[in-house]
Amino acid sequence: MKQIEGGVTAALGFKAASAAAGIKYKDRMDMAMIFSQEPCRAAGAFTTNVVKAAPVKWDQQVVKESSYVQAVVVNAGIANACTGAEGYGYCQETAQAVSEVLGVPKTAVLVASTGVIGMQLPVDRIKAGIGMMVPHLDESLESGTRAAKAIMTTDTRKKEVAVQVEIGGKTVTVGGMCKGSGMIHPNMCTMLAFVTTDLAISKELLQEALSEDIKDTYNMISVDGDTSTNDTVLLLANGMAGNSEITEKNQDYEIFCKALNVVNETLAKKMAGDGEGCTALFEVKIIGAETKEQAVILSKSVITSSLTKAAVFGHDANWGRILCAMGYSGAEFDPEKVDLFFESKAGRMKIIENGVALPYSEKEATRVLSEPEVTAIADIKMGEATATAWGCDLTFDYVKINADYRS
Amino acid sequence: MKQIEGGVTAALGFKAASAAAGIKYKDRMDMAMIFSQEPCRAAGAFTTNVVKAAPVKWDQQVVKESSYVQAVVVNAGIANACTGAEGYGYCQETAQAVSEVLGVPKTAVLVASTGVIGMQLPVDRIKAGIGMMVPHLDESLESGTRAAKAIMTTDTRKKEVAVQVEIGGKTVTVGGMCKGSGMIHPNMCTMLAFVTTDLAISKELLQEALSEDIKDTYNMISVDGDTSTNDTVLLLANGMAGNSEITEKNQDYEIFCKALNVVNETLAKKMAGDGEGCTALFEVKIIGAETKEQAVILSKSVITSSLTKAAVFGHDANWGRILCAMGYSGAEFDPEKVDLFFESKAGRMKIIENGVALPYSEKEATRVLSEPEVTAIADIKMGEATATAWGCDLTFDYVKINADYRS
Repeated sequence: MKQIEGGVTAALGFKAASAAAGIKYKDRMDMAMIFSQEPCRAAGAFTTNVVKAAPVKWDQQVVKESSYVQAVVVNAGIANACTGAEGYGYCQETAQAVSEVLGVPKTAVLVASTGVIGMQLPVDRIKAGIGMMVPHLDESLESGTRAAKAIMTTDTRKKEVAVQVEIGGKTVTVGGMCKGSGMIHPNMCTMLAFVTTDLAISKELLQEALSEDIKDTYNMISVDGDTSTNDTVLLLANGMAGNSEITEKNQDYEIFCKALNVVNETLAKKMAGDGEGCTALFEVKIIGAETKEQAVILSKSVITSSLTKAAVFGHDANWGRILCAMGYSGAEFDPEKVDLFFESKAGRMKIIENGVALPYSEKEATRVLSEPEVTAIADIKMGEATATAWGCDLTFDYVKINADYRS
Repeated sequence: MKQIEGGVTAALGFKAASAAAGIKYKDRMDMAMIFSQEPCRAAGAFTTNVVKAAPVKWDQQVVKESSYVQAVVVNAGIANACTGAEGYGYCQETAQAVSEVLGVPKTAVLVASTGVIGMQLPVDRIKAGIGMMVPHLDESLESGTRAAKAIMTTDTRKKEVAVQVEIGGKTVTVGGMCKGSGMIHPNMCTMLAFVTTDLAISKELLQEALSEDIKDTYNMISVDGDTSTNDTVLLLANGMAGNSEITEKNQDYEIFCKALNVVNETLAKKMAGDGEGCTALFEVKIIGAETKEQAVILSKSVITSSLTKAAVFGHDANWGRILCAMGYSGAEFDPEKVDLFFESKAGRMKIIENGVALPYSEKEATRVLSEPEVTAIADIKMGEATATAWGCDLTFDYVKINADYRS
């Protein structure tokens, strides 16, 4: 497997475009479109929030019922959530508009929105945006990058990645883009992520590959513990790589799953590392667990602890808060057997052994914790299972961003 | 029932004292003691965190096995959590020291600690503090107030309350004190709360009254979602009011439960309203629920939502975040039936009806949300059950306090 430049347009036959449609932001790109030359198999994973945004409801139906999809339209600024029948109607109107311009069925158009909840979409501007984008759809990597920028809200960096693998003697590309960065605590999948591939694969296996992989990637990140109304991951496969279609879980399937995992994990980490206001990516590994489930519960409890997150911001080796967060997670373990390490590019330190602090240097610990990516590793010595979760620190800027996000 | 001045020394026969023992803080009171002239029935409720502080383990045993207790010793600054066998030994030494000076059995002494996790207690200073306090034990309301101040950590206000009721022709007093203010997300009970009463009641009913009441009081507050290692509520009853002992769930028991509820709810709200760095008490009422459990899950999900808390800090009527937090709570409801109101001393406003925003004035909403106590009321129109939870806003100061709490 090799990592290559690009994102959603890296795979053969995928085009992208973006536009400044003035949905809510002024003077910036706020709409993006992905279009595949060939019809695609589509898989999706969506928020488990009872309050589902209109585009989530639309996409769930399309992914379930359409035999193929060909376009995705995304807007930033307004989430089209809590907007009732009117909001759902705008999804239909958007798909209809794309259908007319691109000559694809309405049911082959996916939509996604991110931004403020409760506000209605200005559907005329959405339609105007579609009109602006279609003539500029192209396969260049730059158009993919512009799309990744157009879907940002409070994100500070665009997020994309692409990899290539050999499958059945053909080069298969998997690329994607996503956006965070607040209301991120995916429970099924994450805010908005779009992954494209030129692989030929059955719809069932495409969905299974996605559903399995999100458990270890998007579902293992949290910025603020708030599971959004809009979480959506879409995976489109147009078959243009020319491999013989994958219809069973053979070696080809495994190779694809590994490539998909690299793309999804990279995007998920980019989201956590660009969490609202954050200064550091905070990775938590639980090792020596009895079961995977136990390791997942423990690692997610630590990355969502406000106190731990504030300590990471302060570069403070406040390991007591980590043990405390493990303790209230609901998973059983023996606190008096835990070893805890901090690790970053600046080094690795053992902080506690069998639940009790070692005589480590606070100054040295602060140095390790002052890197942009820091890891805490807890060995609970019960078995062989592990899990890794990704979060970020809790900062003044998180509060600032969210105390006046709407104004 | 009438509210009276005072706290833990309001009930007959309870004395308090405090001392500047230099445990961790300098130049301030950091130890407190409660002593009852007469032996007390004791009830307790403790953290459900797997990582339990040494004093929690000690108190659990005392409450379970001792036929009576007579003294409580508390220190602020060091939590005596994650301190292994050495830390537990200090609880025993503390109880032994009290036993020797006051002439009560070691098993009649409860201990409690709050502060930094993972640091060992300087037990010589604890013992010296006990020596300083004993000669100053007295029944005045002021000594109770000084004790309430001595147990504060990041709290900005001392927290105490007392009420009187008539039971069996006798005046019965129930009074208490508590401290917050970070790592507050009680799951069984709260950080540290001490309630005293001169009621005569059986040990079983005292425990039952406490266990039932914490579900609606301490367990309904959250400052930051972190369930502490030290959460402790102790309830002592010395019988000095002279009522005939309550041994069954009669009318007297009901009267006492109501008084206990007022004391616990008042203390719990004081804790939430003085959450670390907070500027407002945030109350969330779910009404029209099908079951109490559903209402509890929904209300707690809203008060723990970082995004909602940040919006409260910004006086921003960001109701979408409230619906979103209800949506990911795990409780089922129909978002398209929800009515939502904001309420404070400045007024009451209906913001959404059947899941869709009404044309309310943002300016007026900001005015309502700018009070020091604000309430959100969600009517989910499924039944008659209700629940109320209390939290606070998420502020710059919360981050500041917790990014460098140890330094």
